[in-house]
Amino acid sequence: MNLGYVRYIMGRILLLEAALLCPSLVLSLYDREVWATTRAIILSIAVLVVLGGLLGFKKPARISFYAREGFVIVALTWILLSLFGALPFYLSGAISSPINAFFETASGFTTTGASILTNIEALPRSLLFWRSLTHLVGGMGILVFVLAIMPRVESDAVHIMKAEVPGPAFGKLLARVSHSARTLYIIYLAMTAVLVVLLRFGGMPIFDSFLHAFGAAGTGGFSLKNASIGFYDSAYIEGVLSVAMILFGINFNLYYLLLLRQVKIVLKNEELRWFIGIIVTAFTAICIILWPSYESVGRLVRDVLFTVSSIVTTTGYSTVDFNTWPLAAHIILILLMFCGAMSGSTGGGLKISRVIILVKTSLMEISQSISPHRRVPLRLENKVVDNQFQRSVSFYFTSYFMFFVLCLIVVSFSVPNFTSAFTAVAATINNIGPGLDVVGPTGNYESLNPLSKLVLSFAMIAGRLEIFPILILFSPKTWRRT
Amino acid sequence: MNLGYVRYIMGRILLLEAALLCPSLVLSLYDREVWATTRAIILSIAVLVVLGGLLGFKKPARISFYAREGFVIVALTWILLSLFGALPFYLSGAISSPINAFFETASGFTTTGASILTNIEALPRSLLFWRSLTHLVGGMGILVFVLAIMPRVESDAVHIMKAEVPGPAFGKLLARVSHSARTLYIIYLAMTAVLVVLLRFGGMPIFDSFLHAFGAAGTGGFSLKNASIGFYDSAYIEGVLSVAMILFGINFNLYYLLLLRQVKIVLKNEELRWFIGIIVTAFTAICIILWPSYESVGRLVRDVLFTVSSIVTTTGYSTVDFNTWPLAAHIILILLMFCGAMSGSTGGGLKISRVIILVKTSLMEISQSISPHRRVPLRLENKVVDNQFQRSVSFYFTSYFMFFVLCLIVVSFSVPNFTSAFTAVAATINNIGPGLDVVGPTGNYESLNPLSKLVLSFAMIAGRLEIFPILILFSPKTWRRT
Repeated sequence: MNLGYVRYIMGRILLLEAALLCPSLVLSLYDREVWATTRAIILSIAVLVVLGGLLGFKKPARISFYAREGFVIVALTWILLSLFGALPFYLSGAISSPINAFFETASGFTTTGASILTNIEALPRSLLFWRSLTHLVGGMGILVFVLAIMPRVESDAVHIMKAEVPGPAFGKLLARVSHSARTLYIIYLAMTAVLVVLLRFGGMPIFDSFLHAFGAAGTGGFSLKNASIGFYDSAYIEGVLSVAMILFGINFNLYYLLLLRQVKIVLKNEELRWFIGIIVTAFTAICIILWPSYESVGRLVRDVLFTVSSIVTTTGYSTVDFNTWPLAAHIILILLMFCGAMSGSTGGGLKISRVIILVKTSLMEISQSISPHRRVPLRLENKVVDNQFQRSVSFYFTSYFMFFVLCLIVVSFSVPNFTSAFTAVAATINNIGPGLDVVGPTGNYESLNPLSKLVLSFAMIAGRLEIFPILILFSPKTWRRT
Repeated sequence: MNLGYVRYIMGRILLLEAALLCPSLVLSLYDREVWATTRAIILSIAVLVVLGGLLGFKKPARISFYAREGFVIVALTWILLSLFGALPFYLSGAISSPINAFFETASGFTTTGASILTNIEALPRSLLFWRSLTHLVGGMGILVFVLAIMPRVESDAVHIMKAEVPGPAFGKLLARVSHSARTLYIIYLAMTAVLVVLLRFGGMPIFDSFLHAFGAAGTGGFSLKNASIGFYDSAYIEGVLSVAMILFGINFNLYYLLLLRQVKIVLKNEELRWFIGIIVTAFTAICIILWPSYESVGRLVRDVLFTVSSIVTTTGYSTVDFNTWPLAAHIILILLMFCGAMSGSTGGGLKISRVIILVKTSLMEISQSISPHRRVPLRLENKVVDNQFQRSVSFYFTSYFMFFVLCLIVVSFSVPNFTSAFTAVAATINNIGPGLDVVGPTGNYESLNPLSKLVLSFAMIAGRLEIFPILILFSPKTWRRT
């Protein structure tokens, strides 16, 4: 383990977090917010600068490192970002419990959007901005951002990119990873900017437009209104966000291909087709289920499209209390929670590509056990899926499953029923935000006990990083001297 | 497909079912039950004899067959047994809907014990006897019984035994399968007889002792009392049944080894150790969870031991309404529902051996992904688990999972909440019986819509036969002419 290098990078990350807090400081001063808030932000920046400076001051002797260091760096980065990012909330008194502040920040960076706040609107604008900015930063990944702005050793970058970009397949866009990272970030920020303009155009105040665009871009879901997007009650805004969320749930490599005018390749993309297919199927099924209880078809389409788009992309915005929907609709929403968005997008969940492999493997195993002599290789995007890739997917499913059961047991001590426990774990590990019942769209995670909140915070980070980096971080082997 | 042979065996099976209905006829006459009941039993026997005679009259030209025929025979047998076994209930008017009657009978033969009856005690004794006898017959398997009493071609017998005995590993006891089958049945019936005596000794009426012994032996769970075993309110009876259920959840091959005085080999059995370990862990955990709400330790131990033993062995008897237990206890019970009992026992669920392989594979995959160069083969019972075996287990998990989701969607239209839907599917596919909430120990499956009942009936059969034979039966390839 190249500890010096890990230390150095951590220092840099903390300095970067200090920089990311600066807009909130400016906003706090501009709004002449109460001194407690402004002081909390200044203090947080100071702590980050001092600690970051100390850690990142001395360049390490060796700058080479292996995959293991890459995973440790990614895992540590996300934990530290969430810990120190919680400081403004805690120090200002906006969130009185440190565990709650950590939960809220981890929920932000991991783009989960699960909240412990019972009255969001009571927060000062500076903190609301910081809360939503974590979504923007976490969506594409903070280390990808670092790669985008700092030129570095190619092999290191690949390790980090692999660990931080969601999904099993990491497709390099360009020859150099730093170019890939920069291209991804430019597309990402440009799309966010367009969304801000479109929301503003629909009559949403400019501040709200920024924050909701951050939440949609990162597929996070934090709103600055207690009623989430439902507050604006605008068909235009809901329509724009429904489409935007789906667009941010698409692999960003496809946008790059679009820029290169490779439209045909994009349209042939298998994962994209499944993604659209799943959305259309879920939308149709829920519309049929809700049909008898709606008077207006327009309203039905609007509510269902928004909810399906919000859940499948793991964003978690809401316009309607889907807690009151019939159970059959709940089951479909729960299935969508696990599906998640496409790999290489900002969305969470298992990712569509893994779902494809799961479905194809199952069908193949069934047909093979019926006629054992026929052997057809597993294909994804017209390429044969090799054994190592299949093994990594099966590894992901098993560790995901075990982690899920573990969280379920812990959470079961602090929620009233199975639905709440099951969906609380599903909504955090898949980075969605709202679940059903007590953690539903009108509820929140405040009532959970501290241990549950801590475990779910780690579940959010483990889910965002797809478990493996966290496993490496906590493996004793990683820290053994060789 | 050797259709002639399949037809012939089906005829024989129907004749056997007619014979199994005779004790009920005698009982009905002895009790001078209302004519409608006696007539229904006579009519059912007549239908079975005529149809069985027609199908089984002509011996087939070829008597050789392959694995595929074995699976089709097993699948058809269980479906036909349940269909025709429902006749007495339906014809007598005891169960007015044919789908309900099919559900109840399938639940009996598959040793699930899920009931649609709201007042069990209203049934005449002849039908109660038939209802519980299906547990005894289904527990060890009707075709294993056929093998035990009819000498036949060795290779055919292996195919059938493989398909009907629960669990992934089929260990032949003796050189000849028919001897194995006979030995298994003798041990099984002897243990049942001892249990009848023990229950009678505890003050349970002789009729009740027989029926409850059938239910425990088959790990079924049908009682003749609405309050199940709770009716007797006897620590002795609950204690005897707790131990008995666990004993019937153990691989019967181990009893044979005990008869051969191979005590050491039995004690070293890995699956047995896990089984006991899981029971002890679950018992301790639930005791700790329920501790604050119980005044008497004796009562606590008694209630928890009975419930854990009933659920893990997939029997489904109840003495206490565990619906009122806290959620954490529910989560443990739900996990036990999936575990199930040992392979080669009469219990259902995934089977402990599959759970061992799942846990070991997961741990191995985690340790391997941390240090990719170390490769340790997977071992079960000190033997290396080969690739084919691993693949069959992974096939089972994936098809089980897909089937589960499918049932969940269907059931969700007719139950009020996620807990009910999830546990209704879990309790039927794993052959347990009671779930939680509306399908809990004080509830039943009566309120479900007909489609749900039909799907869950098939889920019970698919679960009992471990899915594969049902898949083969419904595969178009099976019926294609070659």
